[in-house]
Amino acid sequence: MPAGERSWWGWGNTAEALTAEESDALVARTAAVLPGHDFTDHGPPRPSDLDVPPSRLDPPAALAALCGDDVADRLSHARGKAFRDVVRNLLGRAEHVPDLVARPRSEQDVVDLLDWCSSSGTPVIPYGGGSSVVGGVEPRFEGPAVSMDLAGLDAVLEVDTVSRAARIQAGIFGPALEDRLRPLGLTLRHFPQSFAHSTLGGWLATRAGGHFATLATHIDDLTESMRVVTPAGISESRRLPGSGAGPSPDRMFLGSEGTLGVITEAWMRLQDRPVWQVTASITFESQEDAIAATRAIAQSGLHPSNCRLLDPAEAFINAGASVGGGLLLVGFESADHPVDIWLDRALELAAGHGGVVKTRRSKDSARPDGDSASTWRSSFLRMPYQRDALARRSLIVETFETACTWEGFEEFHHTITSAARAAIDEVCGGAGVVTCRFTHVYPDGPAPYYGIYAAGRWGSTVGQRDEIKAAVSEAIAGHGGTITHHHAVGRDHRPWYDRQRPDPFAAALTAAKTALDPAGILNPGVLIR
Amino acid sequence: MPAGERSWWGWGNTAEALTAEESDALVARTAAVLPGHDFTDHGPPRPSDLDVPPSRLDPPAALAALCGDDVADRLSHARGKAFRDVVRNLLGRAEHVPDLVARPRSEQDVVDLLDWCSSSGTPVIPYGGGSSVVGGVEPRFEGPAVSMDLAGLDAVLEVDTVSRAARIQAGIFGPALEDRLRPLGLTLRHFPQSFAHSTLGGWLATRAGGHFATLATHIDDLTESMRVVTPAGISESRRLPGSGAGPSPDRMFLGSEGTLGVITEAWMRLQDRPVWQVTASITFESQEDAIAATRAIAQSGLHPSNCRLLDPAEAFINAGASVGGGLLLVGFESADHPVDIWLDRALELAAGHGGVVKTRRSKDSARPDGDSASTWRSSFLRMPYQRDALARRSLIVETFETACTWEGFEEFHHTITSAARAAIDEVCGGAGVVTCRFTHVYPDGPAPYYGIYAAGRWGSTVGQRDEIKAAVSEAIAGHGGTITHHHAVGRDHRPWYDRQRPDPFAAALTAAKTALDPAGILNPGVLIR
Repeated sequence: MPAGERSWWGWGNTAEALTAEESDALVARTAAVLPGHDFTDHGPPRPSDLDVPPSRLDPPAALAALCGDDVADRLSHARGKAFRDVVRNLLGRAEHVPDLVARPRSEQDVVDLLDWCSSSGTPVIPYGGGSSVVGGVEPRFEGPAVSMDLAGLDAVLEVDTVSRAARIQAGIFGPALEDRLRPLGLTLRHFPQSFAHSTLGGWLATRAGGHFATLATHIDDLTESMRVVTPAGISESRRLPGSGAGPSPDRMFLGSEGTLGVITEAWMRLQDRPVWQVTASITFESQEDAIAATRAIAQSGLHPSNCRLLDPAEAFINAGASVGGGLLLVGFESADHPVDIWLDRALELAAGHGGVVKTRRSKDSARPDGDSASTWRSSFLRMPYQRDALARRSLIVETFETACTWEGFEEFHHTITSAARAAIDEVCGGAGVVTCRFTHVYPDGPAPYYGIYAAGRWGSTVGQRDEIKAAVSEAIAGHGGTITHHHAVGRDHRPWYDRQRPDPFAAALTAAKTALDPAGILNPGVLIR
Repeated sequence: MPAGERSWWGWGNTAEALTAEESDALVARTAAVLPGHDFTDHGPPRPSDLDVPPSRLDPPAALAALCGDDVADRLSHARGKAFRDVVRNLLGRAEHVPDLVARPRSEQDVVDLLDWCSSSGTPVIPYGGGSSVVGGVEPRFEGPAVSMDLAGLDAVLEVDTVSRAARIQAGIFGPALEDRLRPLGLTLRHFPQSFAHSTLGGWLATRAGGHFATLATHIDDLTESMRVVTPAGISESRRLPGSGAGPSPDRMFLGSEGTLGVITEAWMRLQDRPVWQVTASITFESQEDAIAATRAIAQSGLHPSNCRLLDPAEAFINAGASVGGGLLLVGFESADHPVDIWLDRALELAAGHGGVVKTRRSKDSARPDGDSASTWRSSFLRMPYQRDALARRSLIVETFETACTWEGFEEFHHTITSAARAAIDEVCGGAGVVTCRFTHVYPDGPAPYYGIYAAGRWGSTVGQRDEIKAAVSEAIAGHGGTITHHHAVGRDHRPWYDRQRPDPFAAALTAAKTALDPAGILNPGVLIR
């Protein structure tokens, strides 16, 4: 678990939430964009004031010590940390609270808990850090449910420094993992925005994307082998740097979101901690040029560690920069060699498309804890806390992320932003902003990440958000995008996932689910049934 | 189809087989290593002299025009091009000949053929270039069979030059594909040893590995989306540069070896044709140093396009070099920038482990057709033809490939080479050589590729080879390796694949197979049933 007290209603830890001064400043900035909005602060209720029904489950005696029905604990496992989760918490809506929180201390505990749930037909939701923003951990169904919190399985069991890999239990949180690897000069180098509040098992189950823009940033590619407890037995793949022996077993469990089994441990590929780091920021007058430059870098084979293109709204709100066409943040890092020449070439490519270098910076020491000092990176990690401060003040703050081809981006982007703006017009009377950045870039296309800031009405913002989200999701699903690039499917993306997924694959996955989870207890409603 | 007449019994095209002079020279070189061996040449029989039973299948009238039962055609589809296939051809053993060869001209033909096979319960084997070296295309079972040759689906349907991707039919052969892409300055840059004699669909179905040592070389990573005809319907994934929407549909079909459906087309990621290329060869006195240097380069983040370590026997036989510890071939290439500085750093790393640079070469023009002028690369593409010349002369020439961690390599390698040598002692009275090279290197481990040259007895070399192969496969399976890194599973690797594959995954894959192929007609005996 990360240090500090976890917020039961909002993102992360209470100690890291915005201070009163920060909130005031944020409100002032936002009010400039959304004049006339009612910024009244609606703080969270006390958990003890909520009307939580008593647990309907009675675990067998042998498992009783692993299970708890404390109301505050159940409440904190009732949902993830999406905007709609946070607002429902603020409103004191206590629906879909799991009946028990089970905390296995060993893999055998996981086996025993699944055996009990299978034989009793009790739904069980594997729970890592609970930072899902897609309804992935919420028992959004009738009847009882167990939330299985894996945080007790948090050991680094073995480190192979020669092959640079470690066998790691799935319940470990990001900071604890990096703390264990740092003395060895190694890092998993996987830094999703939720890094401090999510676990290895959660990253694997949801195909998490890290902070870096290219190459080894997706958890899929960092995975050497996995161990998964399914109701039909334990699946363990071999430690292999590469294999062509049939369809990849790991790729079936990666992204299975708790529906096929409980990931208990994995051998993960590690990297040497970076020593050389260079970054630059580049501005563009036209959006077209900014995109062309970003594409050129993505297709150059230079493999920048950072290659984030912020549109003018995003650049203004989160990086404090006024730009006409876009702000491109490019960075390179290495544990082996200086990378200035890499950056030189990337800047050449940008200049060929009218890019003007605004800042360029080198660092000769390793990045502390994967964090960085840049305004934007700090802002990046603070964004969810800012979202919570605005959610308390009736703002609708939501994100949508997807991926598409470079060729299709312009039309796709126009369709999505038009749908978002039309929905904001419809639902919020037009008071809102839509921002866009590329979080990851591939040779064949970008992963655009949209932010929405809109003026809602207190008590209605969940419904307003749902309408906007549905409109945007329709646009994404109808125009060839993916309903999620790295946030996962969960329950919130399910209708559009079903349209995106090829029908024969749905049939195959359903059959696989039935083989591994014949009682259908694992995370019902997600992906499959 | 590649130019020239296809050999019915041996590798590739008859025009490319060894000349009499080349055969004589090869025999002389080999005789120096294996004195006393009987090098009598046993040429192939005429197909018309073989005792091939008549076809047992009568296709429906609507499909008759797509199907043929010509004996020579059926014979040439009866097996792949493994050593044991070639020798059985030389011996005139005509077992397991498919009853019909079906040649669909459109995707609808594929649908119709599968419908007929499903309703009649007739096994069907999807057939690309037929270059399988693992028994992947052989109807090794009782009862009739259809070989579905996809070579008629050979069009490049669309090219997206902005996103650098193309929609390509699965039956296209390597050279034809590159011919289509070359005028656009693009390349798939996928060059397996079988490049000229295998198809896109075959590469996808078997998770083929290309020539390059790191990064984008496996067909899996070059795949943007796939279209697959299954008996349960057509599965088409979206063109997405990245996605986190559930387990990847493509990753289920990649490596499915014709058991889940027939791949008809795919959107493939392309690259600009390389302009800058630099290569070097480095020698080492000790094997330990050679491995340490190779690992340092693999873990450096330099991403060489080539990083092949040949052991002394491999270096002598295929590169004509006498080295004490190993010969490392390193290369870099780019379409965007000069890569000398990359090579400089790789050579520094090698020098740190005692490596001595023997040659260094730059090329300023694009590689013609993915081929290169180096001795070793030419030798690489000629190896299967040399194998056939030796097979005719009672030699056992076989390869085994796998992957393991760096930490485990030394013991693993010792175990495998010991098993191979013991088997050669047992089966061939000790007359044989075992070679090793790394074909691909990963940050967490190498992919070692073993060659065996042993003196057999004419008429017994298949059985002798099978005994050696079984001994080596036992060693691989028993010591944590993969039974195949890029040759696929087929029928020859099946017993060890079953041990390697996690049981729950086997259950899931079997259930998926039943959902997609309820009649169980697709490539029976491979992977699943």
